[in-house]
Amino acid sequence: MKVGIIGAGRIGKVHAENITRYVPSIKIKTIAEVFMTDELKEWANTLNIENVVSDPKEIFNDDEIEAVLICSSTNTHSQFIIEAARAGKHIFCEKPIDYDIEKVQQAIEEANSAGVKLQIGFCRRFDHNHRAVYDMVQNGKVGKPHIIKISSRDPEPPPIEYVKVSGGIFYDMMIHDFDMVRFLAGSEVEEVYTQSSVLIDPAIGEAGDVDTAVVVLKFENGTIGVIDNSRKAVYGYDQRVEVFGENGMAFNNNDIANTAVFCGEDATTYGTAYKVMWDRYTMAFAEEITAFADAVVNDKEVPVTGKDGLYPVLMAAAATKSMKEGRPVKISEIL
Amino acid sequence: MKVGIIGAGRIGKVHAENITRYVPSIKIKTIAEVFMTDELKEWANTLNIENVVSDPKEIFNDDEIEAVLICSSTNTHSQFIIEAARAGKHIFCEKPIDYDIEKVQQAIEEANSAGVKLQIGFCRRFDHNHRAVYDMVQNGKVGKPHIIKISSRDPEPPPIEYVKVSGGIFYDMMIHDFDMVRFLAGSEVEEVYTQSSVLIDPAIGEAGDVDTAVVVLKFENGTIGVIDNSRKAVYGYDQRVEVFGENGMAFNNNDIANTAVFCGEDATTYGTAYKVMWDRYTMAFAEEITAFADAVVNDKEVPVTGKDGLYPVLMAAAATKSMKEGRPVKISEIL
Amino acid sequence: MKVGIIGAGRIGKVHAENITRYVPSIKIKTIAEVFMTDELKEWANTLNIENVVSDPKEIFNDDEIEAVLICSSTNTHSQFIIEAARAGKHIFCEKPIDYDIEKVQQAIEEANSAGVKLQIGFCRRFDHNHRAVYDMVQNGKVGKPHIIKISSRDPEPPPIEYVKVSGGIFYDMMIHDFDMVRFLAGSEVEEVYTQSSVLIDPAIGEAGDVDTAVVVLKFENGTIGVIDNSRKAVYGYDQRVEVFGENGMAFNNNDIANTAVFCGEDATTYGTAYKVMWDRYTMAFAEEITAFADAVVNDKEVPVTGKDGLYPVLMAAAATKSMKEGRPVKISEIL
Amino acid sequence: MKVGIIGAGRIGKVHAENITRYVPSIKIKTIAEVFMTDELKEWANTLNIENVVSDPKEIFNDDEIEAVLICSSTNTHSQFIIEAARAGKHIFCEKPIDYDIEKVQQAIEEANSAGVKLQIGFCRRFDHNHRAVYDMVQNGKVGKPHIIKISSRDPEPPPIEYVKVSGGIFYDMMIHDFDMVRFLAGSEVEEVYTQSSVLIDPAIGEAGDVDTAVVVLKFENGTIGVIDNSRKAVYGYDQRVEVFGENGMAFNNNDIANTAVFCGEDATTYGTAYKVMWDRYTMAFAEEITAFADAVVNDKEVPVTGKDGLYPVLMAAAATKSMKEGRPVKISEIL
Repeated sequence: MKVGIIGAGRIGKVHAENITRYVPSIKIKTIAEVFMTDELKEWANTLNIENVVSDPKEIFNDDEIEAVLICSSTNTHSQFIIEAARAGKHIFCEKPIDYDIEKVQQAIEEANSAGVKLQIGFCRRFDHNHRAVYDMVQNGKVGKPHIIKISSRDPEPPPIEYVKVSGGIFYDMMIHDFDMVRFLAGSEVEEVYTQSSVLIDPAIGEAGDVDTAVVVLKFENGTIGVIDNSRKAVYGYDQRVEVFGENGMAFNNNDIANTAVFCGEDATTYGTAYKVMWDRYTMAFAEEITAFADAVVNDKEVPVTGKDGLYPVLMAAAATKSMKEGRPVKISEIL
Repeated sequence: MKVGIIGAGRIGKVHAENITRYVPSIKIKTIAEVFMTDELKEWANTLNIENVVSDPKEIFNDDEIEAVLICSSTNTHSQFIIEAARAGKHIFCEKPIDYDIEKVQQAIEEANSAGVKLQIGFCRRFDHNHRAVYDMVQNGKVGKPHIIKISSRDPEPPPIEYVKVSGGIFYDMMIHDFDMVRFLAGSEVEEVYTQSSVLIDPAIGEAGDVDTAVVVLKFENGTIGVIDNSRKAVYGYDQRVEVFGENGMAFNNNDIANTAVFCGEDATTYGTAYKVMWDRYTMAFAEEITAFADAVVNDKEVPVTGKDGLYPVLMAAAATKSMKEGRPVKISEIL
Repeated sequence: MKVGIIGAGRIGKVHAENITRYVPSIKIKTIAEVFMTDELKEWANTLNIENVVSDPKEIFNDDEIEAVLICSSTNTHSQFIIEAARAGKHIFCEKPIDYDIEKVQQAIEEANSAGVKLQIGFCRRFDHNHRAVYDMVQNGKVGKPHIIKISSRDPEPPPIEYVKVSGGIFYDMMIHDFDMVRFLAGSEVEEVYTQSSVLIDPAIGEAGDVDTAVVVLKFENGTIGVIDNSRKAVYGYDQRVEVFGENGMAFNNNDIANTAVFCGEDATTYGTAYKVMWDRYTMAFAEEITAFADAVVNDKEVPVTGKDGLYPVLMAAAATKSMKEGRPVKISEIL
Repeated sequence: MKVGIIGAGRIGKVHAENITRYVPSIKIKTIAEVFMTDELKEWANTLNIENVVSDPKEIFNDDEIEAVLICSSTNTHSQFIIEAARAGKHIFCEKPIDYDIEKVQQAIEEANSAGVKLQIGFCRRFDHNHRAVYDMVQNGKVGKPHIIKISSRDPEPPPIEYVKVSGGIFYDMMIHDFDMVRFLAGSEVEEVYTQSSVLIDPAIGEAGDVDTAVVVLKFENGTIGVIDNSRKAVYGYDQRVEVFGENGMAFNNNDIANTAVFCGEDATTYGTAYKVMWDRYTMAFAEEITAFADAVVNDKEVPVTGKDGLYPVLMAAAATKSMKEGRPVKISEIL
């Protein structure tokens, strides 16, 4: 299968490199990037990418290209989904589709009517540790979930310039956890309550955002979810999930780089968490693209659908509203 | 120091036995229990307790007795505190002091005016695992706490008859966690939000209570706390705390009975959690009485004060109100 | 059951205190100690021990006393066993019975002919962690053992004066592991090979001993055992066993004081091992005496027999001979 | 750098695929395999390997090829090393070089005189977990090593036909551990003692080999090493190292596929060990080739030298002799 990639920023490059290494069934024919540089061309050359262009239309108009990966900035996602759908290309789009719910819905509808596949880039579903917990839930070991807890903390806050335009912590960070909690719960969220603080950097507060947040979710089936986010965990990237249910509890410990332990006079120590997200989720990124290729080539359902792209945005909107109004907010107030 | 114990139910017996074994500085002179039986007398005899009486007055009127342990039913606590205070006895009282905040306050004031020591039985503060996390917070390793998480789950729901009179999950179960979260935070709670469900036994719902609850707390200093409770964890007694702060995270794993691991063909297994609270917290019960004896004998501040008895009751009231009204409730609304 | 204790050194006191706390079925009537002091009398008083005497005969001649605990120095064990047996007392004797195999055998025979019970103080069999591994072997989870590994390391070497008279590392330290490996293997040792070094303190070498030793054991049923000992583990008391067999592996991690973990910027840290043996094995000491009381009172087989006292001494003799001669030594060469 | 690969069996294919994925600085120009098949050609085609030939001479005679990877059967290694050296090619050779010590020495000398680099394929040195322990030793945390323990167990015995020709467990399996223990010790072995059994399959004994073996090593600096091997661990591939030294202990836990844990009613369960070596050491294989490329391209010392290839063979010879003669054997008896 030949694909085109739109956007050659960080995530676009990660996908291109992963495809070259781990996804032999995909050949990247073209990469489109408006900010063209010589370095970019050189990099594309090392990956044997045929065309490096600045206009995505060259991808949409290329009959050989079956699918596109949309890795450009969030505000362009929905428009590119629509164009790709109209061009009959299958679509892998980075999360979130958009901050505007109507645009999200419109994009999903266009993909549906065009009959093309649309997969959203929630890579954590493909992480081996989260997947192992998910499998324990799916195979019935846990029974009906009662409480789902997710901790998700970044090593460092993003630049303030990014905070100002990202839509805030619920859209740029907790959106992953909103997806994960739905993935684990197997039920939809009815109500959202947010408690939050600015404890790490006052500049984040001045930019209108928070840096520490806890969100409580009530699911339709009575399951209660809790997500906590922090912009700064000095010990590194911290990602853990726990599903407590009628038959037991499945959880994962945070991932670390190796199993070595040192027993010294004053302390027993082992490795710290990953300090860089890309190190931790390398194989998860590769797995999601492999699954996308499998869905396209073998005409299967994609594992992360347009609806899976919409709901976390609804939850982010509700969480933001709850924070602002200091009360629980129903998803039905957002839709 | 000679003491009298009021109430020879489960907890009264546990204290009596622990004192005999682990607290050589205390001699139990008298135990008072309204429901007198031959078995009780026999049991008291094996512990060399001099007097087994049905009227607590025999304790209050005994000049040799310096301190009383109030282990009777909750509705008698405040009255016995007052009587003991007036008799000039130091007081160790099981939690909670009362469900009625005025009664709690009155009891504390009487103890204060009488100049006697009053320690509340929040035993978990003395558990070696929770204490180790507390020490990490106290010695500055964690820095300012940002998020505090407590999981607390029982192996089995109590009898429905108990649920009907206990005041509900926030008073009979989460009260321990309200104490623990204050202990770890070093700040007072401002606002409480509850999300809850009946997922384990509909009879609990019919009795007006819930069996699964998540409470979010906002502290005065901005720290956010989250407590989750379940009436039934099939794998046993689950008690974990986590303090995430500016310099790192301190947490404890759930306690298990031994360090043995089995690597078999299909699974690696290790021991399950304790199924019985008394097995898990044996030494914590002993430590709290040792600390009480130390405070009395050496005229020190007790480690769990009357105020420490009051605040968890305020939090339980706020949590209950939040559950009923579906909104965050400020502690100032309760007081 | 009333008992007498011979020897009020460290281990004698530990047993006396444990009996008072944890073994309600035993009453210590008399303690005999040649080096009498006022402190000793005072200490005995706090435990309500009736008689503090300097001559063990007062124990042997007391008809009320059913059993003796021999806690005196090793060179007196076999003689006291014989005297106690002849006086018709059941016997708990600290390990080892003696360094001289003939004396060991004679003592065992005297106890046998007198029809009294003789239990040897190999306390580690009663440690909850080792016991959990043992249970996994006994209940068939592991299947036939193929390889048994024991690590056993002390926080500090004993005083050189002790090293000079203790019989060496195989008699004063590894003797515990010789017992443990037989306990786990369920088979007798045929051959012993020792490799050793002086790596910690040259003075230990000058005293004729080693401080680092590895012993390989071949059992009659083909199982291979490996024991490693070090006189100095800076991180504390390290005691681990591993039984690898046809159906899996049972092992234990070293015991630590609590389950708390700290995730800091540069390291993840948890508690170090116990630095003091008595802290680690408190309950094991209590359990062995409880088992002895149970055997005497209910006329059961003792859990650590005279034969269990003899074989580790044979293994220590073989290990010492192997070290000196640089070759594997058969147990049959010793007997 | 262009390379040729000799041998397209299991390990040859693993290296070819790893190079394609993970070692962008290497281009495989030619692969030579005497047993040519259509499947092989097709496989080579998917990796864009230009030439698939049956005669290794086509590699030796190709001026464009700078280095060869010798992945053929062990009995051909030394001859191919000599031919490659004479053709001026740098050499990566799978372990062991040969069972015959003279042939090993001759091969090393030829590579030396030809001035080509020779790296031996001891991949475990590049495993992230073993490397982390090695780093702790190298950076001085452990101090001088006193005891080094290695456990190494395979999920299943190899076919009996292989056992008959492999040279035995010390040459085909423990050879890796002989390399690892030298790597960790930083000292050479003086003496070797073997204890062994046939406990898994009598056919292995009939073929003249053992299936369970423990080897004790004495190093020149006094360090004691212990290696245990089993042909069959039902729970999967078990690889652990432990370095105990004057300042502490560095060890690793066995590697498992993910960090998920399940707490059920009767057991707490987590993932089993890898059942397939290639899954476990994927990145180690990639790392060793990356290091080889780095050594060739940047003219550095290879990380596993010819001497590192020779010494494990000496240790295997000594271990075999010790097993046969039932006594410790000095390395000096072998050389």
